[in-house]
Amino acid sequence: MVAERPDGIVVRGAKAHTTNAVFADEILALPTRAMGPEDRAYAVAFAVPANAPGVRFIASPRGFGATNPFDNPLSARRKTVESLTIFDDVFVPWERVFLNGEWAAAGLLAKTFVEFHRFTAISYKPPQIELLLGAAALLAEYNGIAGAGHVRDKVAQLVMYLDTVRGLTRAAAQQCRVREGIAVPDVALTNAAKYYFAWHYHEMARAVQDIAGGLVVTGPMAEDWLNPAVRADMERFLGGARGSGAEERLRAMNLVRDLTASDLGGYLEVLAIHAEGSLETQKLTVLMDADLEPYKAFAKRVAGITTGAPARARIPHG
Amino acid sequence: MVAERPDGIVVRGAKAHTTNAVFADEILALPTRAMGPEDRAYAVAFAVPANAPGVRFIASPRGFGATNPFDNPLSARRKTVESLTIFDDVFVPWERVFLNGEWAAAGLLAKTFVEFHRFTAISYKPPQIELLLGAAALLAEYNGIAGAGHVRDKVAQLVMYLDTVRGLTRAAAQQCRVREGIAVPDVALTNAAKYYFAWHYHEMARAVQDIAGGLVVTGPMAEDWLNPAVRADMERFLGGARGSGAEERLRAMNLVRDLTASDLGGYLEVLAIHAEGSLETQKLTVLMDADLEPYKAFAKRVAGITTGAPARARIPHG
Amino acid sequence: MVAERPDGIVVRGAKAHTTNAVFADEILALPTRAMGPEDRAYAVAFAVPANAPGVRFIASPRGFGATNPFDNPLSARRKTVESLTIFDDVFVPWERVFLNGEWAAAGLLAKTFVEFHRFTAISYKPPQIELLLGAAALLAEYNGIAGAGHVRDKVAQLVMYLDTVRGLTRAAAQQCRVREGIAVPDVALTNAAKYYFAWHYHEMARAVQDIAGGLVVTGPMAEDWLNPAVRADMERFLGGARGSGAEERLRAMNLVRDLTASDLGGYLEVLAIHAEGSLETQKLTVLMDADLEPYKAFAKRVAGITTGAPARARIPHG
Amino acid sequence: MVAERPDGIVVRGAKAHTTNAVFADEILALPTRAMGPEDRAYAVAFAVPANAPGVRFIASPRGFGATNPFDNPLSARRKTVESLTIFDDVFVPWERVFLNGEWAAAGLLAKTFVEFHRFTAISYKPPQIELLLGAAALLAEYNGIAGAGHVRDKVAQLVMYLDTVRGLTRAAAQQCRVREGIAVPDVALTNAAKYYFAWHYHEMARAVQDIAGGLVVTGPMAEDWLNPAVRADMERFLGGARGSGAEERLRAMNLVRDLTASDLGGYLEVLAIHAEGSLETQKLTVLMDADLEPYKAFAKRVAGITTGAPARARIPHG
Repeated sequence: MVAERPDGIVVRGAKAHTTNAVFADEILALPTRAMGPEDRAYAVAFAVPANAPGVRFIASPRGFGATNPFDNPLSARRKTVESLTIFDDVFVPWERVFLNGEWAAAGLLAKTFVEFHRFTAISYKPPQIELLLGAAALLAEYNGIAGAGHVRDKVAQLVMYLDTVRGLTRAAAQQCRVREGIAVPDVALTNAAKYYFAWHYHEMARAVQDIAGGLVVTGPMAEDWLNPAVRADMERFLGGARGSGAEERLRAMNLVRDLTASDLGGYLEVLAIHAEGSLETQKLTVLMDADLEPYKAFAKRVAGITTGAPARARIPHG
Repeated sequence: MVAERPDGIVVRGAKAHTTNAVFADEILALPTRAMGPEDRAYAVAFAVPANAPGVRFIASPRGFGATNPFDNPLSARRKTVESLTIFDDVFVPWERVFLNGEWAAAGLLAKTFVEFHRFTAISYKPPQIELLLGAAALLAEYNGIAGAGHVRDKVAQLVMYLDTVRGLTRAAAQQCRVREGIAVPDVALTNAAKYYFAWHYHEMARAVQDIAGGLVVTGPMAEDWLNPAVRADMERFLGGARGSGAEERLRAMNLVRDLTASDLGGYLEVLAIHAEGSLETQKLTVLMDADLEPYKAFAKRVAGITTGAPARARIPHG
Repeated sequence: MVAERPDGIVVRGAKAHTTNAVFADEILALPTRAMGPEDRAYAVAFAVPANAPGVRFIASPRGFGATNPFDNPLSARRKTVESLTIFDDVFVPWERVFLNGEWAAAGLLAKTFVEFHRFTAISYKPPQIELLLGAAALLAEYNGIAGAGHVRDKVAQLVMYLDTVRGLTRAAAQQCRVREGIAVPDVALTNAAKYYFAWHYHEMARAVQDIAGGLVVTGPMAEDWLNPAVRADMERFLGGARGSGAEERLRAMNLVRDLTASDLGGYLEVLAIHAEGSLETQKLTVLMDADLEPYKAFAKRVAGITTGAPARARIPHG
Repeated sequence: MVAERPDGIVVRGAKAHTTNAVFADEILALPTRAMGPEDRAYAVAFAVPANAPGVRFIASPRGFGATNPFDNPLSARRKTVESLTIFDDVFVPWERVFLNGEWAAAGLLAKTFVEFHRFTAISYKPPQIELLLGAAALLAEYNGIAGAGHVRDKVAQLVMYLDTVRGLTRAAAQQCRVREGIAVPDVALTNAAKYYFAWHYHEMARAVQDIAGGLVVTGPMAEDWLNPAVRADMERFLGGARGSGAEERLRAMNLVRDLTASDLGGYLEVLAIHAEGSLETQKLTVLMDADLEPYKAFAKRVAGITTGAPARARIPHG
């Protein structure tokens, strides 16, 4: 907030990583962390139309530049656009100002947002894992290695990765607390799920790439596939096991490349660890929310330590 | 089963790893895997009193030989006894025979047992993790390093380890299927939880040892503590941060050693990966239970593969 | 080999993953594995000019399609081309035939090739790691987080990753065996280095992405940078710590994206685990080459086991 | 140093973790870290006979209390004793005082000691890994699972763990710098080897326990083995594959338990991560010794960053 007028406030600044903001009608802004009195000018929350004077977006379609669905079955058809959203002395009328200098409320607002935002994250990730799992299982077949010990091992890891993220997400929802009529997902489980997903994402991409094989990045491209003379060579040499033709096999390879070894794949890797808060923020939230006293009291009791504060109430199971 | 009599059967064989069987009144035996016609003689299930003629136990109190609660606060006070249970031509009357050669039922019996047994496992593990977490948090304080980045990191890992095992266990219970009036925990979540617990257990022990420090295995022993002259030296040099005396600190160290770096600690490590089925059996169960077809169909649809079987019904979400 | 003529042989088949073959004057082909009598027709080794009649390449510049050096500082300037190399009834005169049906020699030939090929791999990887490390260290500074515990931790991991790969590579060279005047690098160390590099590559990419931040995939692109009006916004909001301007910071981000989160980044990930042999082949080679008998004999001696074969000669130290 | 006399100094304090000091004739003390002027009193280095008046040891034979070589083949026969070494106003004559208040030399002295000490560590670890590998390979055979994919995988991991530690150790020696006639092992490689060994030690213990099976902690004990009646039962039911009798198998199991799942096993785990410096100190040393400037300059050059300090001299390859 740089100026206050009788009819509202004027804001100035920018926010990075505003996913799909360019498709939105309304832009909401709110604080991203706890604040002190010295942050008063930054303690603002408001909504403005996306075309309000002074609002600008520098859009970045990174990860989604592909145009041929044979080569990039996902990213050539579905688009996400990131942007740097700039507020260049944007006027916000009072009825759209939610916070204006009340710095003490900033932390709660930020945390409340994150609690839901991170739950969103773990809710939209399972389909992505399902696709990784499906592509790996498919290529294990096409490559004729579905029965190999190390392949079964990797598929089992992918299944458990999926089960764990989905299981924790559901548990976070089922163990919600209802605050003023709104169900708030369990914070510890939400963060544990997000961290687990993010921490292991690169390993899972590696498992899929391992099963798929080098052809993922050395295989011929769409232009060659569309040329009948070259396609004949590809059909002759690149067919797979169990009757899979070169087309099925290459399309499956291309899905793996698009998902894990391409501009989109890179976007998804960085998304895994940075979107909805980085790995460090998940650990921070977990520590902030965890009450370690009951566990310390439990350890003291078992260890026979009688000094210090008396053991606190029971460990909360639920 | 080596012989059938008019009034029952005679069984011969042995079962390893029968935890606490020596404290039981009745011994139940059942098949441990799917069987074929050639296994008919082994397809037996029965119950006998622990003192039936021919039943013998070779007991093994490994991990629980400690006697001084100062040195070994847990294992000196709580005991588990493993045994090799031998059936040396034991007679079992018909009313105690549940299976006698019906090999086709062996697999189902074994699997049903394991489904509950593995759920038992993940239900009794959280308190063990709570103790590891509590001991680590306590020693982080006593050692004056609770604020160090790497210590906070390890404590956060322990918290999420606990949350994840507990969260998945609860989810497995909440997403049970009721079969003939009995709630059967979700198999995928149960196995994912058990595998996750087991696979990461040694890393978690390492985190606790890392926070606790070398004194865990180099600290003075109970005999010295009980000697007033030596105790004075210990109190002079081994006190910790935040006013913790040598006694608190050594007792906490001893808890860590007992839990992670002792005969009991070793027992718990092996238990983590072998009890209620080894790591490999969890992966096996997961693959046996997982229906990969919907995921493959999903991958085919996204990859644009139209050959092969049509996409199956929706991925089961629940 | 499909036909033998008085003046040579005629070969038919294809080889995938032939890196940069399209730039070569001569194409060498040799067996890729041990063979039996039934593989006689495949037990061929030969050299042909790249433009010999019947030689065709289906080239695949995947990973190297970028054209703007601002966005992709590496892949827009340096190119690698993979190909499927096809031998469509190619005639090879006798003086260029090295193997023609001598199946018993195929295994040795393949293994000898791999021993050097894998050593090549670990020799060209360190500069790639140096670049990852340099980019991470640079962005730690530009992002103002070089002193944070978790950042220092990740930088230390990268340094040790580099030291370990480079150290093992050098050790493999220093502990070579000279066979007929040719220095053959130590097989065990070569494979251990390659496996270590490959197994941890994705984790290292994750560490670099973690330090660099989400801007790696959400930052504005070259077109915006070249537009003075937009560049002014970028310079205003995207500058970094320690006086680093938006340009330095974005260029460093772009290097990280190009290296780890792009078509090239994906190519490098798949290359890490599949080029010069997959993870499984490294384990296979290690087991094939390792003589476990001395270690078993050592274990037997310490365990007090006197039965079985007498302890073999000493463990070879070197 | 608490007092200076005409003929020497008087020292007071204690040192924890003094391995095998109780067997030594002479006790050497030196600073453990860099010091400032305020640490002058602690900046002492000296040697005293172990029986000098005022020198006391509180000995701790933790990990080595076992007495029966059947149950504990290693720890019942070989002993290490840790101690808290106390200097209770010990007089040290001048000819045995090496440092007395010269605080500026403390850091160099400590670092020099650590450089050699850590090299000692990685030199004595390989035989321990050889024993783990040998025991695992032996039990893979006795358990009849040597050909199973996951077992081969774990054995290959153990082989590479051994090769990597041994290879880096040798490389550290070969790439030494000679300072005043003394060969100083390469610091980066020494620390990378120590960290690699320590970080993966628990996983390797897990691999060995996984191959060995639950019998490691549930098997009968020496007392039963020595009882002919019970031994007959054991021989009947606990024999292994490939003709291995119960004795070989149990002795091999006992070796695994002694090494990885016992008081000794716990001692070795804590030793792995804390002896010769903790994991954190290795990372610290690595960062202290690493010159990141050449890598940053390399990254800047590739990224096209021309601002800031000019690229420094070449990356040191040696």
